[in-house]
Amino acid sequence: MCVACDYTIHRAKHNFGWNRDFAPALVAKPGATIQFECMDSSGGQIGANATLQDVIDLDFSKVNPVTGPVYVEGAEPGDALKITIREFTPSGVGWTANIPGFGLLADQFAEPALHVWKYDPASMAPSLFGPGGKVPLKPFAGTIGVAPAEPGLHSVVPPRRVGGNMDIRDLTSGVTLYLPVEVEGALFSIGDTHAAQGDGEVCGTAIESQMNVAATLELVKGANLASPRFTTPGPVSRHLDGAGYEATTGIGPDLMVATREAVMRMIDLLTAEHGYSAVDAYMLCSVCGDLRISEVVDLPNWVVSFYFPRIVFS
Amino acid sequence: MCVACDYTIHRAKHNFGWNRDFAPALVAKPGATIQFECMDSSGGQIGANATLQDVIDLDFSKVNPVTGPVYVEGAEPGDALKITIREFTPSGVGWTANIPGFGLLADQFAEPALHVWKYDPASMAPSLFGPGGKVPLKPFAGTIGVAPAEPGLHSVVPPRRVGGNMDIRDLTSGVTLYLPVEVEGALFSIGDTHAAQGDGEVCGTAIESQMNVAATLELVKGANLASPRFTTPGPVSRHLDGAGYEATTGIGPDLMVATREAVMRMIDLLTAEHGYSAVDAYMLCSVCGDLRISEVVDLPNWVVSFYFPRIVFS
Repeated sequence: MCVACDYTIHRAKHNFGWNRDFAPALVAKPGATIQFECMDSSGGQIGANATLQDVIDLDFSKVNPVTGPVYVEGAEPGDALKITIREFTPSGVGWTANIPGFGLLADQFAEPALHVWKYDPASMAPSLFGPGGKVPLKPFAGTIGVAPAEPGLHSVVPPRRVGGNMDIRDLTSGVTLYLPVEVEGALFSIGDTHAAQGDGEVCGTAIESQMNVAATLELVKGANLASPRFTTPGPVSRHLDGAGYEATTGIGPDLMVATREAVMRMIDLLTAEHGYSAVDAYMLCSVCGDLRISEVVDLPNWVVSFYFPRIVFS
Repeated sequence: MCVACDYTIHRAKHNFGWNRDFAPALVAKPGATIQFECMDSSGGQIGANATLQDVIDLDFSKVNPVTGPVYVEGAEPGDALKITIREFTPSGVGWTANIPGFGLLADQFAEPALHVWKYDPASMAPSLFGPGGKVPLKPFAGTIGVAPAEPGLHSVVPPRRVGGNMDIRDLTSGVTLYLPVEVEGALFSIGDTHAAQGDGEVCGTAIESQMNVAATLELVKGANLASPRFTTPGPVSRHLDGAGYEATTGIGPDLMVATREAVMRMIDLLTAEHGYSAVDAYMLCSVCGDLRISEVVDLPNWVVSFYFPRIVFS
């Protein structure tokens, strides 16, 4: 339980997608701190005892439920909603899957795959994966957003100007996020909690894990933000960086091609040097490896680098 | 001077571009440690007393000289050249410019601009920039490569499969870089030394600074690398991350558009909150801000984030 919270929104109060006409789960004044009971991104379809069949049978109309929405009194189009992320209460169970048709290398990984994680929600000690891997954990919410101005139901899958499924791995405890408000009351929702992820979320899933999130909602009047921004109070990579990195590169005139090549080469390295199957290496890259744009100015070729943390094997 | 070095290659031994037919400056056995006297990327055209006119008058046929090449005995196509970067001897002077026609936002920054940096090459303490900014330094070589197989002269500007002008900010002291060898002897050259840069090098220049570099060259026979890769022995961002980050985002279906938007929004933030002119903010972003791909799987929209280190203002 969250001792500093003014309200709790229970998991039954969730929606699939965004809609300015969804009824508020809560009407709150700016400054309220709220405990959100979030579901995992499968909406409970892939649990602690899941098998590959559960991935194959996944009902996509029930993925990525977001808890909410919260109507924030006084919020108007042009304001920013300031979200201070306070605390996560992780469940200790998670999953990572290769879902056919989804992911950066979907063309190369057509078969479903699943890994179910167990971790200690008290210590948040690194969680084991495959031959010798230990993945550091750092929980965050993959989907945080407000309702778009345009009427109707909008898919939860793509992130937008108003946030949503951004999967920014640094939206962790202590961070302040600013989202552009497009409708009265903002209509804030949150979900898709992750126990760990690398920049890129390359296989399409993180360590998907049910947890609760406490957050404070405030308003910045007339901020006129063009897109989300956030402030981190401290370092963002120290859970990963202690032993340095193995890095691979993609070099060429197209950022997406370079991105794919960098990841493909890391998968090759992990399979050759650590005995992972290709799909396990792909999922491992997704939960702890980072995509960085090393240079984007030396015409006509850009460099995208994929950083894999050596601490996983140390 | 480099006490552990077997050879020194003086700065007079440089070339503009890559060519398999360049005469070696040195023939060395694998395992040799070499001191490379590198020039700055202007080839001395922009020095400690430079003015904007020097940027306007820049002779592009004389940019980015690389010191070398070294013919490594026994190196054959299919091998990897393993470069262990040992030590930098910085000069204490550097420059950052907006060069018209060059840079991620060249369409928006048509006017030339220049900042000349002074720093203490012994302490490498952060260097001052504009109203209240202190930029942490971490030297590296922007251009490290071997000769391409294809005959003829190849421009030094774009990086390639064989390396070159990669501008990877983490190719610092202690790092091991592997490059695919395409010609007998590998023909290794290095230059374009930088006192600091962020991931992306968004304005097109870093803190361009003359320095010497010591490196050990070894061979990995038959490695058959597809593109450069590197190993860092420890963390890569701790000179930047102590006070956390301000981050802006670009969200949309095109990575390049999202990249440009993330940087534009950080320029807006730095001008609004810290009193920089737009072009100074752009140059500041280039020398210490990092481009990261936060997610590249949530169809059809990707998220690119630009991380600006708050330590610059703390």
